[in-house]
Amino acid sequence: MAEQLWGGRFSKSTNEMINEFQASIQFDKRMYHEDIAGSMAHAKMLAKCGIISDEDCSKITDGLQNILEQIEHGDFDFSIDLEDIHMNIEKRLTETIGEAGGRLHTARSRNDQVALDTHMYVRRETAAVQKLILDLQTAFVATAKKYSDTIMPGYTHLQRAQPILFSHHMMAYFSMLSRDFSRFKGVYERCDIMPLGAGALAGTTFPINRQMVADELNFSAVYANSLDAVSDRDYIMEFLSAASILMVHLSRISEEIIFWCSREFSFVELDDAHCTGSSMMPQKKNPDVSELVRGKTGRVIGHLMAMLSTVKGLPLAYNKDLQEDKEGLFDTIDTVKFSLAVYAQLIRGMKVNKENMLKAVQEDFSNATDLADYLVKKGMPFRSAHAVSGKAVHYCIEHNKWLEDLTMDEFKSLSDLFSEDIHEAIKAQTCVDNRNSYGGTSPKQVQMQFELAQNILNNEQQQLSLYK
Amino acid sequence: MAEQLWGGRFSKSTNEMINEFQASIQFDKRMYHEDIAGSMAHAKMLAKCGIISDEDCSKITDGLQNILEQIEHGDFDFSIDLEDIHMNIEKRLTETIGEAGGRLHTARSRNDQVALDTHMYVRRETAAVQKLILDLQTAFVATAKKYSDTIMPGYTHLQRAQPILFSHHMMAYFSMLSRDFSRFKGVYERCDIMPLGAGALAGTTFPINRQMVADELNFSAVYANSLDAVSDRDYIMEFLSAASILMVHLSRISEEIIFWCSREFSFVELDDAHCTGSSMMPQKKNPDVSELVRGKTGRVIGHLMAMLSTVKGLPLAYNKDLQEDKEGLFDTIDTVKFSLAVYAQLIRGMKVNKENMLKAVQEDFSNATDLADYLVKKGMPFRSAHAVSGKAVHYCIEHNKWLEDLTMDEFKSLSDLFSEDIHEAIKAQTCVDNRNSYGGTSPKQVQMQFELAQNILNNEQQQLSLYK
Amino acid sequence: MAEQLWGGRFSKSTNEMINEFQASIQFDKRMYHEDIAGSMAHAKMLAKCGIISDEDCSKITDGLQNILEQIEHGDFDFSIDLEDIHMNIEKRLTETIGEAGGRLHTARSRNDQVALDTHMYVRRETAAVQKLILDLQTAFVATAKKYSDTIMPGYTHLQRAQPILFSHHMMAYFSMLSRDFSRFKGVYERCDIMPLGAGALAGTTFPINRQMVADELNFSAVYANSLDAVSDRDYIMEFLSAASILMVHLSRISEEIIFWCSREFSFVELDDAHCTGSSMMPQKKNPDVSELVRGKTGRVIGHLMAMLSTVKGLPLAYNKDLQEDKEGLFDTIDTVKFSLAVYAQLIRGMKVNKENMLKAVQEDFSNATDLADYLVKKGMPFRSAHAVSGKAVHYCIEHNKWLEDLTMDEFKSLSDLFSEDIHEAIKAQTCVDNRNSYGGTSPKQVQMQFELAQNILNNEQQQLSLYK
Amino acid sequence: MAEQLWGGRFSKSTNEMINEFQASIQFDKRMYHEDIAGSMAHAKMLAKCGIISDEDCSKITDGLQNILEQIEHGDFDFSIDLEDIHMNIEKRLTETIGEAGGRLHTARSRNDQVALDTHMYVRRETAAVQKLILDLQTAFVATAKKYSDTIMPGYTHLQRAQPILFSHHMMAYFSMLSRDFSRFKGVYERCDIMPLGAGALAGTTFPINRQMVADELNFSAVYANSLDAVSDRDYIMEFLSAASILMVHLSRISEEIIFWCSREFSFVELDDAHCTGSSMMPQKKNPDVSELVRGKTGRVIGHLMAMLSTVKGLPLAYNKDLQEDKEGLFDTIDTVKFSLAVYAQLIRGMKVNKENMLKAVQEDFSNATDLADYLVKKGMPFRSAHAVSGKAVHYCIEHNKWLEDLTMDEFKSLSDLFSEDIHEAIKAQTCVDNRNSYGGTSPKQVQMQFELAQNILNNEQQQLSLYK
Repeated sequence: MAEQLWGGRFSKSTNEMINEFQASIQFDKRMYHEDIAGSMAHAKMLAKCGIISDEDCSKITDGLQNILEQIEHGDFDFSIDLEDIHMNIEKRLTETIGEAGGRLHTARSRNDQVALDTHMYVRRETAAVQKLILDLQTAFVATAKKYSDTIMPGYTHLQRAQPILFSHHMMAYFSMLSRDFSRFKGVYERCDIMPLGAGALAGTTFPINRQMVADELNFSAVYANSLDAVSDRDYIMEFLSAASILMVHLSRISEEIIFWCSREFSFVELDDAHCTGSSMMPQKKNPDVSELVRGKTGRVIGHLMAMLSTVKGLPLAYNKDLQEDKEGLFDTIDTVKFSLAVYAQLIRGMKVNKENMLKAVQEDFSNATDLADYLVKKGMPFRSAHAVSGKAVHYCIEHNKWLEDLTMDEFKSLSDLFSEDIHEAIKAQTCVDNRNSYGGTSPKQVQMQFELAQNILNNEQQQLSLYK
Repeated sequence: MAEQLWGGRFSKSTNEMINEFQASIQFDKRMYHEDIAGSMAHAKMLAKCGIISDEDCSKITDGLQNILEQIEHGDFDFSIDLEDIHMNIEKRLTETIGEAGGRLHTARSRNDQVALDTHMYVRRETAAVQKLILDLQTAFVATAKKYSDTIMPGYTHLQRAQPILFSHHMMAYFSMLSRDFSRFKGVYERCDIMPLGAGALAGTTFPINRQMVADELNFSAVYANSLDAVSDRDYIMEFLSAASILMVHLSRISEEIIFWCSREFSFVELDDAHCTGSSMMPQKKNPDVSELVRGKTGRVIGHLMAMLSTVKGLPLAYNKDLQEDKEGLFDTIDTVKFSLAVYAQLIRGMKVNKENMLKAVQEDFSNATDLADYLVKKGMPFRSAHAVSGKAVHYCIEHNKWLEDLTMDEFKSLSDLFSEDIHEAIKAQTCVDNRNSYGGTSPKQVQMQFELAQNILNNEQQQLSLYK
Repeated sequence: MAEQLWGGRFSKSTNEMINEFQASIQFDKRMYHEDIAGSMAHAKMLAKCGIISDEDCSKITDGLQNILEQIEHGDFDFSIDLEDIHMNIEKRLTETIGEAGGRLHTARSRNDQVALDTHMYVRRETAAVQKLILDLQTAFVATAKKYSDTIMPGYTHLQRAQPILFSHHMMAYFSMLSRDFSRFKGVYERCDIMPLGAGALAGTTFPINRQMVADELNFSAVYANSLDAVSDRDYIMEFLSAASILMVHLSRISEEIIFWCSREFSFVELDDAHCTGSSMMPQKKNPDVSELVRGKTGRVIGHLMAMLSTVKGLPLAYNKDLQEDKEGLFDTIDTVKFSLAVYAQLIRGMKVNKENMLKAVQEDFSNATDLADYLVKKGMPFRSAHAVSGKAVHYCIEHNKWLEDLTMDEFKSLSDLFSEDIHEAIKAQTCVDNRNSYGGTSPKQVQMQFELAQNILNNEQQQLSLYK
Repeated sequence: MAEQLWGGRFSKSTNEMINEFQASIQFDKRMYHEDIAGSMAHAKMLAKCGIISDEDCSKITDGLQNILEQIEHGDFDFSIDLEDIHMNIEKRLTETIGEAGGRLHTARSRNDQVALDTHMYVRRETAAVQKLILDLQTAFVATAKKYSDTIMPGYTHLQRAQPILFSHHMMAYFSMLSRDFSRFKGVYERCDIMPLGAGALAGTTFPINRQMVADELNFSAVYANSLDAVSDRDYIMEFLSAASILMVHLSRISEEIIFWCSREFSFVELDDAHCTGSSMMPQKKNPDVSELVRGKTGRVIGHLMAMLSTVKGLPLAYNKDLQEDKEGLFDTIDTVKFSLAVYAQLIRGMKVNKENMLKAVQEDFSNATDLADYLVKKGMPFRSAHAVSGKAVHYCIEHNKWLEDLTMDEFKSLSDLFSEDIHEAIKAQTCVDNRNSYGGTSPKQVQMQFELAQNILNNEQQQLSLYK
């Protein structure tokens, strides 16, 4: 039977089934560290403000320290009857230190206590995610550098479009992840606000000092409105949004890696550690990790949907619906951290098949734009040059040739503007080298991206070091 | 270290982190019964078709029976290294009965085995959900009958609109749930198809008899296409859709009950078992169960979103992304079953405050339509009658009266068509009695709804009894 | 300035911006036919029940017929000030036929009128979608038959797994679409219920006959509860669910076609009509239609999410939020109909490159399962056979061979059970022919699928013919 | 028949239906200003870099200026055959100025052109949304100040919990909107990056100067990677995320206003402009605007889901699926701007019924926490005090009293710690005054919130003024 702290008012006890369904201890126990640190800070503040005695404060902090050690040594039995991590700890504390334990809850409510713990937890995990993003960015740069001169087809519509450097392709993901880092920085900042002291919803009648708690727990700010403090779930919705966008990025590289691993592409080979075999088909080497990450993107988007839909239309301040905020969040944190960590390994371990990539570029018409550009540079308006290039491709298909194979006569028959330099102009290497404007795929520009990347990484590193 | 069954091809083993992340045993162990029943049916068929010996078949079925008992007695240790329920059971079987155990996997693949188990599981749980819908419908009828003559305001836009019977309101939910029952029947039918024998994707080279397995396991049909059999997740998407719509229904009654429990409405009192108190505010009696169910609606919608988004754009046949199909499904099943079960209790236990409901009807203008209808029946076109009624309300607001309070002179000044019978015509009871067309709120019509409901319940009961 | 029909009660008029935002005439005018047919049926019933005179009824039906013709000839100016299709038509009617027009709204409310129109519209469009599903299924069968003997690689994890028939692959989509057809049948049935007569929420005080309206408009049933009739949006949520699952199916074939059109696969060539070129790269032939359909899948899923999230937590009966039900629905109908229609064309017009498909099968290890099955049939337990097959593949990779290239000595060194017939056993054609159990990929089984398909198509055709 | 610019390669033209379906001119024409400004900047840069002549540049800019004026005067016929805004304008330009028009597309592709236009458009609209957020914040402060001393019940679980100031409640929304402003600032920053020069995907072979275009168009940065530049839709997903969270906030105040307008609460009266009446029930004054905004929250969430789901799993660089990015975005922009604008009016126009609010506080037990706090201050541990307070409430309910009504004897019988000052301690005004810690509901603290708010508003104003 559950211990129910509000028993006075009721003549019947909540029945078993419901207890189980609304208990959160199974998942919120992971916030034990935050709960204890928050309670310690609260107790110290209460003592400094003269609301509890120094002696009670010492008992409380010693008792909590003790419980912390028990939990970390696996010596703490969590009870589902005590519903959540907060009551599990408080009950134990009261059992251990007696009446002083009962004073810990002075000037706070479960509403602001939960809010505090969750803010601390999300803040910590946001920093952890940012760290992992930085690691994955580093992996993309490393792999890009390892294969910095490898040419591959660039695709649009999954059709070979123009030759690019593989390293350029890798650096596109570096750029996406920089925005992810920046988005999570926004999450961090809007989460780094201290809610304790809001009470159940309206503040407290005790002469507390909220800034003191904020300082003790390294918060940058304090919620200015108590109703907002207990009903705000923005930081969770925003975390889930940022996580969804990040996972969408990882789903894109996953899709590409799955292609690249197919026999048809054969562009890369993954480390065996990131693949699995088949119980039925011994020849298979499946890019399971990439498929799993792509699949789990749906899961994270689903958690975002759940949260938005749950908070929609809720009146202030607290409603029980908001208890639904944690499971999806925790699962998202685990999923995102795993996905980033495993991808940092996978990208570093991926072997690139340069020959196949180059061959793919050579046996296609991905230099057709360069042929058109060649004509433009000789004075033809773009739209006409594009039409000539189209005719050239058409001609090649009919005669089973590539553009490189056309004779000077054949070129001339398409336009007088062609001369001998056309053959050089449409080589894959030339195509790549010539895309030399800022942000383009030329080796020189990719080098510049590497330098820029180093600055970004240093900058991100520094931002992380400022988090307390 | 994980046992990996496809070890032959690989020189390195999948690393620990990945193993853990892609293991499903934590959640798919709940399908142990289906896995064992499916394997038994498969073994019997293999023996009947001469693919394995009768002796091997006996060893297999005895061994599986043994394992089933171990699991049900809590004597089976599930191992995360064996990844899923299927390997956990097969490994134990082979340890126990030796080489014969190895023959069980003949002519099947993990792809069609998983598909079989999941179909059986979803089919069973769909029936369970239908049973609980029926129970909740019965509860709505019982409570409607208990308060069959109670008048309350009917609302549109949360504004009091017209007087209705509380029982009529309850029966609206009965109707919604009838459609839910019918939708889950569709899920059941489209899930009741047997996939085993599809192999990994293309069928099998062994002379199996799939109909025999279907008969043994009470399936109504067999998948006609092996690729479809292993890649179909329609029954899961459809289950989640039906569950989402059902939860939306429960979220609507939840919203209403939360209102009705507020001090402002004070229309109902819930049993203490379906409420909780506050750690801070002793006077609170919070309708937690209703809030929780409303909140969990978002969760179920999120799972639907996750699944649709995961399957979108997947090529045939199996992709690892599809492993993401189970957790959201299982959580949805638990959530829906809890919500239905607790609501059947809650609706039965709910006490209705008739006086407050009636008072609410009398102190408002919800009889204004009846006043307009009165004029129409006396020959005024509807739009004009509506305008006169609007003026009457306006007049009452200015003079701080209700429509019932208007004198005959006041009525006459609004229209000559009014005569003495107007006072009777706009009483709440008259308003209710007069809405006597089919489906209306009059006591007579609600009685007819009760009779109709009994037919529907009988019919549903009979449908369930046909499920094997 | 907007005409506001409830003007009596208000001293100020709703301001311009709001009028525009809440007007629905821009999108609900497409229901003009339903609105007029519904009003005609209502008028006839009112006259038969003696609520309006036969003369008024004639004026109304003639007037409405007139308006119908005006709209169909493009001679009707829809006014945003009249907010919706219902008021646009009613206003014109009253202008034309005078006071009788005002009597049309007797015994109905905008709530049940809108509900009626939307039910009729969704019912009609559901049938239209089913017809298009049937057409697309027919296209899949036709293309499957055209290439009934073409062998291609079957994939799992986008890795070549086992040889299959291209026709078998096509028929997998046929099967999916059969379930879609069946799901929309469920939508149709649960939509085919007549709501008129529910009034604003509680029924009407007039002695109407709802069954008469239902008969006139070919509805199979009448809503049994007036609150439910005006607040039910199940048929829309269910339509959107069924549409989402259907679009997920189309997104899967789209993904495959995009692969197949890539230079790397080169399995199919689409008709030029279903591709577009590039403004910059003249060689491109982009499978735009497939990409568009894949992209629009997200759009339809989004509409479903919008609807579920909007209805969640709404109290009975009508709330303005429900006006949000139409735009997403209409857009979904257009999207689904286009996608089905264009895909029927695309599948019919698609040219299959048999040589490339066959080559893909021969240059891979997709016969490794057959090698394992061979050993099982010679008496080796499955798991051991699987291990030997894995070793064989491993050996081939190291020696740069395919399984077919192994000598008898090499085979023997892997297992004594191999004999001469192994070479025949692992040919692609043999692999396909041997998967001859029900639902497998063998030519014989695919023929059986064709026959089954014809029955299904006939059955669907017949179901459609029963719709009135 | 459509003009197709890539005609050279194709022998058949795309058919009509597809043209219509993939045309975007119906919705992307709203970006005409951005398209023209972008093209002008591009032309100037091309001329400065010597890629086109100054003469051509003048012709182009004059021609574009001309077209801009035509569009703004409504003299431009958009053609669906020209598919999108870009081709509509370019075609007209070429018709007007001849060959020079053809040179405008030199060194750019439709991919980077579309990206540029959309970035400019989203950047502008983000600033517009921020401006409207600021306006709404100002409205909340104004209304809070107007009713700064009004006491109302604060709710948790929709149960009256503790007395609060109405102004405190308003300021909670101010705080939420501050975070919204800050989130949109993040959107702005990550959108304020210039993509032009990325070409189709790989950069361009022309010696362009991207910084020059960025300066001309007031962009803060240039995309460092061309693949990223054309495939990035983060700024759209992030806009939709920020919009969804903002709408969730508005849905919460909407829900509250709908309650407050109900007869049961009767806390506020909306301006007639923000309500509508009923066609059937003349007495109704429905809070339509609030319902509509609450409903449209689902719509915006749906657009976010659509976008995430569409981008998920797309390979680099451009895919046609991405064309689906605009309709949901544009609709979201319109919806969010309307909702903010109408709410600023509604909040300003809302009349608060102080008497009803105060009465609600007095006829409830929302001072029970204060009674417990009173005991804690007299030395009782919190949990015990909470139990005594619970008993007091229980006693009152049984004896049909409020806490204020208890005699000194009754108090003493509950605890010896009570003395005469208890009656003062539990008055609503005392309860409010005593919650005087930072962020609490006391009048003093709310005044401080007003001062803080002014700083925030000033700061936001300044941020907006920095946008160019």
